[in-house]
Amino acid sequence: MSEQINMTPEHVTAMMRRGPFHEWLGLEVVSVSEDEIELIARWRKEWVVNVDGDYTHGGILAALVDLTADWALYARTGRGVPTVDMRVDYHRPAKSGDLRVKGVVVKAGGRLSVAEARVYDMNDNLLASGRGVYVSNIQKG
Amino acid sequence: MSEQINMTPEHVTAMMRRGPFHEWLGLEVVSVSEDEIELIARWRKEWVVNVDGDYTHGGILAALVDLTADWALYARTGRGVPTVDMRVDYHRPAKSGDLRVKGVVVKAGGRLSVAEARVYDMNDNLLASGRGVYVSNIQKG
Amino acid sequence: MSEQINMTPEHVTAMMRRGPFHEWLGLEVVSVSEDEIELIARWRKEWVVNVDGDYTHGGILAALVDLTADWALYARTGRGVPTVDMRVDYHRPAKSGDLRVKGVVVKAGGRLSVAEARVYDMNDNLLASGRGVYVSNIQKG
Amino acid sequence: MSEQINMTPEHVTAMMRRGPFHEWLGLEVVSVSEDEIELIARWRKEWVVNVDGDYTHGGILAALVDLTADWALYARTGRGVPTVDMRVDYHRPAKSGDLRVKGVVVKAGGRLSVAEARVYDMNDNLLASGRGVYVSNIQKG
Repeated sequence: MSEQINMTPEHVTAMMRRGPFHEWLGLEVVSVSEDEIELIARWRKEWVVNVDGDYTHGGILAALVDLTADWALYARTGRGVPTVDMRVDYHRPAKSGDLRVKGVVVKAGGRLSVAEARVYDMNDNLLASGRGVYVSNIQKG
Repeated sequence: MSEQINMTPEHVTAMMRRGPFHEWLGLEVVSVSEDEIELIARWRKEWVVNVDGDYTHGGILAALVDLTADWALYARTGRGVPTVDMRVDYHRPAKSGDLRVKGVVVKAGGRLSVAEARVYDMNDNLLASGRGVYVSNIQKG
Repeated sequence: MSEQINMTPEHVTAMMRRGPFHEWLGLEVVSVSEDEIELIARWRKEWVVNVDGDYTHGGILAALVDLTADWALYARTGRGVPTVDMRVDYHRPAKSGDLRVKGVVVKAGGRLSVAEARVYDMNDNLLASGRGVYVSNIQKG
Repeated sequence: MSEQINMTPEHVTAMMRRGPFHEWLGLEVVSVSEDEIELIARWRKEWVVNVDGDYTHGGILAALVDLTADWALYARTGRGVPTVDMRVDYHRPAKSGDLRVKGVVVKAGGRLSVAEARVYDMNDNLLASGRGVYVSNIQKG
């Protein structure tokens, strides 16, 4: 199924960024394969949670976990698919700055799939990690 | 402890909106009490997940669940507090439009607290719901 | 659909206890309605987590959250249905003793449903709570 | 800190099995290291969920995820520690039979730690996986 899908980082970046929220997050796919994806999100001042401007809001990290786990399923789905549910653990406060996110498939199923993602700062500190359940058998666009 | 905390919706809105991400989400507290909070988030086109512009990204809903559950603990904490982890179930696709979110305390603990939140569209359809674990014993600012 | 389903506590108890694990947990349905179920689980010494025998293992509480949320969907499904995923928050240590569990439907969907459950001791202290996602459209047996 | 802790599988098995629920689950540690643990749980007929006796109850799998993730932290804690919360995804129905569970530390923190676990059947099929948050700074016994 995945042979018809264009798996270059540039193509997946372009697919992703058709969505305005992904564009706003400044997403850029660094690498993509059958079971994994890695992307960068570009920090912007609207991400900040506190007055002093030092920390990124946990909601941004949650969104990154959700969408990166989702797109780790790209080789099977050809696009972002509906999330059934999602969970995030926060490991360290996220200082302002770009973020690196790695997504990996845990179990690809016929109807539902599970994938997980880890969010790092640019010094490779693990900031948050989590996973989601995704609908895998929708019609492809 | 909560007697020194100003519990008017206007005050809590102002507290929240000191954070740029909350400002960007257009948060407005509608009501607030010892165990509950209700707020509105103002739709903006950057929330959209798809090309056609009809649907709000699940990451926005996740952020709203996280922060509303967090601020449901306001009477105990006097501010937003660090999230330990967070979980969201998606019930219906969220069409573009403002969102209403209700947060309620499940268990206020000495060290850790649990609160949950539900996200509705302006026609009272339940779109997403979830809960988080929060650090409750940090120093107040 | 639910009109053909026998909704007495005795009937649902009997249905549940056809499963050996439910029998072992000593489950007894106290009340059941369209959206809610309440049951008792009978403490046994094999539940204990610690040497001194005072505390019930969190795995027992997790099992009770899972199955009670599941059977809250009984009016729609006519039986226990497969769990997609499940989450539990632990609020207080569970001293040895019988447990009371209340399950309620959060969202009944065509394909997937969400329900939650709360575990109490016999003095109505909230010990644990959580929710699960369940497959709702399987063939009935 | 871990140098005083006896890390042999036999010792950790003995520590675990001081708890009656662990004894009942027939737990046997196969390997243990700084960040990982692997154990076997011995099937018993009380685990069964259905009349025909073919499937293991999801509550048993949930308990195994919880306790194995917990004991993956053994090198840091010297014993099982309180679970803050726990989540499980179910990937395949679990046929009756012994189970193999692998736990690994995701993030060891000063106050709270995160660990995950995967449950396999004896043919290495992934049945369930999940993670928990654990209190890491309690007094050691």
